[in-house]
Amino acid sequence: MVIDGLPSGFSIDQERLSKDMARRRPSQQNYSTKRREPDEIEMLSGYHNDRTTGTPLCAIIRNRDTRSKDYSNLESLMRPGHADYSGHIRYKGFNDIRGGGHFSGRLTAPIVFAGSLAAQILSMSNIFIGSHIDSVFDKHDVRFDDTNITEEHLNNLKDMDVPVNELSCREEFLAIIEEARKKCDSVGGVVETAIIGVPAGVGSPIFDNVESNLASFLFSIPAVKGVEFGEGFSITSLYGSQSNDSLYMENGKVLTRTNNNGGINGGITNGMPLIVRTAVKPTSSIAKKQDTININTLENAKLEVKGRHDSCIVPRVVPVIDSACAITILDMLIGYYGLDRFNGGKGLYG
Amino acid sequence: MVIDGLPSGFSIDQERLSKDMARRRPSQQNYSTKRREPDEIEMLSGYHNDRTTGTPLCAIIRNRDTRSKDYSNLESLMRPGHADYSGHIRYKGFNDIRGGGHFSGRLTAPIVFAGSLAAQILSMSNIFIGSHIDSVFDKHDVRFDDTNITEEHLNNLKDMDVPVNELSCREEFLAIIEEARKKCDSVGGVVETAIIGVPAGVGSPIFDNVESNLASFLFSIPAVKGVEFGEGFSITSLYGSQSNDSLYMENGKVLTRTNNNGGINGGITNGMPLIVRTAVKPTSSIAKKQDTININTLENAKLEVKGRHDSCIVPRVVPVIDSACAITILDMLIGYYGLDRFNGGKGLYG
Amino acid sequence: MVIDGLPSGFSIDQERLSKDMARRRPSQQNYSTKRREPDEIEMLSGYHNDRTTGTPLCAIIRNRDTRSKDYSNLESLMRPGHADYSGHIRYKGFNDIRGGGHFSGRLTAPIVFAGSLAAQILSMSNIFIGSHIDSVFDKHDVRFDDTNITEEHLNNLKDMDVPVNELSCREEFLAIIEEARKKCDSVGGVVETAIIGVPAGVGSPIFDNVESNLASFLFSIPAVKGVEFGEGFSITSLYGSQSNDSLYMENGKVLTRTNNNGGINGGITNGMPLIVRTAVKPTSSIAKKQDTININTLENAKLEVKGRHDSCIVPRVVPVIDSACAITILDMLIGYYGLDRFNGGKGLYG
Amino acid sequence: MVIDGLPSGFSIDQERLSKDMARRRPSQQNYSTKRREPDEIEMLSGYHNDRTTGTPLCAIIRNRDTRSKDYSNLESLMRPGHADYSGHIRYKGFNDIRGGGHFSGRLTAPIVFAGSLAAQILSMSNIFIGSHIDSVFDKHDVRFDDTNITEEHLNNLKDMDVPVNELSCREEFLAIIEEARKKCDSVGGVVETAIIGVPAGVGSPIFDNVESNLASFLFSIPAVKGVEFGEGFSITSLYGSQSNDSLYMENGKVLTRTNNNGGINGGITNGMPLIVRTAVKPTSSIAKKQDTININTLENAKLEVKGRHDSCIVPRVVPVIDSACAITILDMLIGYYGLDRFNGGKGLYG
Repeated sequence: MVIDGLPSGFSIDQERLSKDMARRRPSQQNYSTKRREPDEIEMLSGYHNDRTTGTPLCAIIRNRDTRSKDYSNLESLMRPGHADYSGHIRYKGFNDIRGGGHFSGRLTAPIVFAGSLAAQILSMSNIFIGSHIDSVFDKHDVRFDDTNITEEHLNNLKDMDVPVNELSCREEFLAIIEEARKKCDSVGGVVETAIIGVPAGVGSPIFDNVESNLASFLFSIPAVKGVEFGEGFSITSLYGSQSNDSLYMENGKVLTRTNNNGGINGGITNGMPLIVRTAVKPTSSIAKKQDTININTLENAKLEVKGRHDSCIVPRVVPVIDSACAITILDMLIGYYGLDRFNGGKGLYG
Repeated sequence: MVIDGLPSGFSIDQERLSKDMARRRPSQQNYSTKRREPDEIEMLSGYHNDRTTGTPLCAIIRNRDTRSKDYSNLESLMRPGHADYSGHIRYKGFNDIRGGGHFSGRLTAPIVFAGSLAAQILSMSNIFIGSHIDSVFDKHDVRFDDTNITEEHLNNLKDMDVPVNELSCREEFLAIIEEARKKCDSVGGVVETAIIGVPAGVGSPIFDNVESNLASFLFSIPAVKGVEFGEGFSITSLYGSQSNDSLYMENGKVLTRTNNNGGINGGITNGMPLIVRTAVKPTSSIAKKQDTININTLENAKLEVKGRHDSCIVPRVVPVIDSACAITILDMLIGYYGLDRFNGGKGLYG
Repeated sequence: MVIDGLPSGFSIDQERLSKDMARRRPSQQNYSTKRREPDEIEMLSGYHNDRTTGTPLCAIIRNRDTRSKDYSNLESLMRPGHADYSGHIRYKGFNDIRGGGHFSGRLTAPIVFAGSLAAQILSMSNIFIGSHIDSVFDKHDVRFDDTNITEEHLNNLKDMDVPVNELSCREEFLAIIEEARKKCDSVGGVVETAIIGVPAGVGSPIFDNVESNLASFLFSIPAVKGVEFGEGFSITSLYGSQSNDSLYMENGKVLTRTNNNGGINGGITNGMPLIVRTAVKPTSSIAKKQDTININTLENAKLEVKGRHDSCIVPRVVPVIDSACAITILDMLIGYYGLDRFNGGKGLYG
Repeated sequence: MVIDGLPSGFSIDQERLSKDMARRRPSQQNYSTKRREPDEIEMLSGYHNDRTTGTPLCAIIRNRDTRSKDYSNLESLMRPGHADYSGHIRYKGFNDIRGGGHFSGRLTAPIVFAGSLAAQILSMSNIFIGSHIDSVFDKHDVRFDDTNITEEHLNNLKDMDVPVNELSCREEFLAIIEEARKKCDSVGGVVETAIIGVPAGVGSPIFDNVESNLASFLFSIPAVKGVEFGEGFSITSLYGSQSNDSLYMENGKVLTRTNNNGGINGGITNGMPLIVRTAVKPTSSIAKKQDTININTLENAKLEVKGRHDSCIVPRVVPVIDSACAITILDMLIGYYGLDRFNGGKGLYG
């Protein structure tokens, strides 16, 4: 990965980085792939004397635990739900399908690396990001209290292997995932993310708005099929008198009584928590036998996907979503307030 | 508006353009604003001898029916659900709130103009786009048959003032809207859009993928709070064995039995219809009295929004959504297949 | 023209704008085209209560004095030195050649409009831009004293119809131009531009550097064939010990004794005046008979270009070059220091 | 380096790549740095089974021969002509000055890697690029015959350590460089580049034109201070009747009798060879004692730059310039003709 546009003079909190990277790695739980992905990060440029230099930061994470034989029959049999067929056409058959190639979930490791840096820089400006798993399959957690979210609560979520607001949900989510695994099947879910501390006035109407920018990055994460802000799709079953968030003054601050718009009006932040939910589809790679085609013979075929796959990737996608949000928000802040303000290891407020 | 990157030699179907523009304008129905918005388009450059020249096409649509007095008290009272407050901070109080300024729904007129041109160019390549209203408030239409959508069906939808798949829905939708109007309130809804004929292999993994690009434009439309592809959020309550779309061959063509991924795998089209749903919140401007603040005195205040507003904008947003999709898809096709292929008024297939 | 990214709250000095626009217009001198180009600017958006709103500023300048008959035989005969042939191929014959279409020098009017605004915003930050005509044909003016250039000197240049450092050059330049006119021919020249007051530290190494950005815009001006910074091409006949600009401290400021690098090291400003020279070729449209081809018959042909053309455009290009520099530098400052710092009609220093 | 947007299915000619990389490396001549820079390229992604996959190609070249002690006193003493001071301000003192950090000439190695690939892809479309050294200090080579340049001639230039059109120039250039070295000084020069085979019709008027794009990349190369096309600055001392390149037909092809515009009219290629000259300043690092400042004490100081530096980098810049041109032209061709046309290892003509 190459990260350009970072402020100079920023010192990486290596412990926090390790923790963020660990959240994305396969867990020891049954449901997760048995691949070992140690995520050794080698920084090649842009970091000197334990500080960012401000020039492009290049880092590499090598993929050490690939078993190419797991992919041996995939050169001809197109996995349903995967990009095997669409990628084959796009690249005229030259794309690398080992471990998914550029379609691999491994591509989210550099996103988490960049996201951890971005989140660390944001926290110097009192901006914090965190997520809980809103649902897995048909089971739902309770949502954030969207007008009142604390840094502490978001930090606690980062310490959970299956981050939830209602603690009892964890066991239920794990039970659903375990059941799917036993069926040689997989399940998906929804992740709800809160971003607190973003000052009002960031973003623009029509193009370069906060929602477009966040959604654009979130849909770049493999398996994401839906993104919504505030009440999202449910806002369509409210009356305007309900969905409008009334403004009021409290201790000299402008607040809203509800937060159905997810902290964004007209594409611009209003100072309330940003709320975004992301739908993650069930893992495409399942052990169950499926119908598909052989791209070489152009005949119908049957496929059983071998290899070591997660029966639910939602817990591992959480840090990727946090990272996508952190990168996008930092990028917008640097765009609006200027790199100069952050250079030398400073935050928004000095 | 200025549209750069158009192919040369393309001749606008003025009748079709007028029809597309008319769909966005206020209807004669009770629920719609009483403003007259005649949408006279003056083309200033880029169009000569009834053909695009290939250089930037500049066109203007003047806003002739503004009543500034409707906005007189809005300089200090921030409308809830609007961008008044966030915009005030963003622009340090200098933004123009007459008719919403750059936040006005009027800004969607140039999108429909550009979208009509894009759709006309796409139809030369046998690519067609159309939408129905999937829901208004708590009432739902039937969805598209997502593996089998015809050009004819999509065209029929464009002839309806309230486009629906199940014809009986029209009256029910209008009744809900009328009820909201009587309550001095407003309602929102969901629009489902289909794009057929896009060849497989368009888009890229991670960045510059079809979903990010479509979502980015759709979230640029005022009032949009959610975007989902294929089964979208509902895909999270399917098993992987259900959500994976099995591939099969039929008459030498590669098809999928279901289309839960909305025609997109790994960010790349797979040749099936693209399916996207867009959540549109209730109109923010309502006649009901609301709590808010006075930005000048920084005190709490009450507000009744005067002026002529839609009690439901969903029918008028439909052509804007169609346009956002047409512009995005044409842009991606020109990017991948090259402008040269379209220059001289040609489609993908010559 | 549409200008996005302007700071809010900025009030246009209409007198200065008029003066800038007038400098680009044909002069009353013999050498200049007899077309009347009154440059009436109509602002359609982004400007309200005599202040920029911060949202896109759209303005139009109509081309009122075109004589299409002057272009009647140009549809088939390709003017040498013009973009007639290259444009014909690029746009498959659909480009508009009336008055040059998108290749017309008229396209520089919006650049001067935008440039005047940019220069006005820059002057609030004590950054000033001005140019003299360094040469016409074989006659040379004296160059700027490149370590010591005052705002006053740059302003004086803007008051001259033929801006020169050595006043006697004006008559000599005009004599050369008049002689070319009498021969039904044309001449070009070089413009030297100084930008003073840019703080050190703006720009980036490799990509997004000051020289690339300025050159990119300058080469966008029709007829420009060369761009050089500081000593430019002549620096290649110095020794390194001469071309290196020695640094020294004076009154707590870092300065250089010479300015052979034109105020830019490694793509980044060093606080000294930026010096750039731009080569402008002789006007392509000349009354003399020329050899060319007929694009329709694909036969060799003779052409006499009718119409009203400048025998030297260098004086009129000066404000366009100033504008290209102003837009580029303002864009880089906003990028590095952030829009927020300029919003509300402020300069870099408050 | 990460190269995105490459066509799929392209096989790298490793021998040609090695040769291109070798041209940039220090020569065995006296004038060149004694650093060993072996340029071992490790490809991490985007290349599989000896073909580009079409997804981002990531490669690294490690900098193995740095002697940090050579840079020990440079942390406080700012080298004149270098970016030490401007970079110090830009990055608030956090930039890495070891070997120049991101300002190092080593950064041109990845440009040559990418440029070699681009040139190889272009040659499949019969587009060829080559350069000779037009001048060193005050000695000039003969220029290209700009209407008649062969692939063979350009290839021959690549086989010379000091590429020249007039063979006797080589010894004279080397003598000048050796004399500078003995004086503990350095010299610069001009490189003239030809690009043949680019079809007419590539580029756009005003923005995204061929000259802006080439100049933008060329000015990204460290030490470049001037760029000109065709006759460049000298075109300003021609009459329009001379500078206009007359068109004529020959064997069904459209040609020009002269090529003063360097193959570009109105920012668009006209099918003639593209001619660009690039001014390269004398190496900033010289052994001679120079005046400068100490950035820590903010006092005047004396500096002798130790280390192993070229007394003339012009020969080594030649392949970097070729590469900048190859990357820019390929990028513009892919933009105009589309990636699809090149995917699967094809050229413009199949």
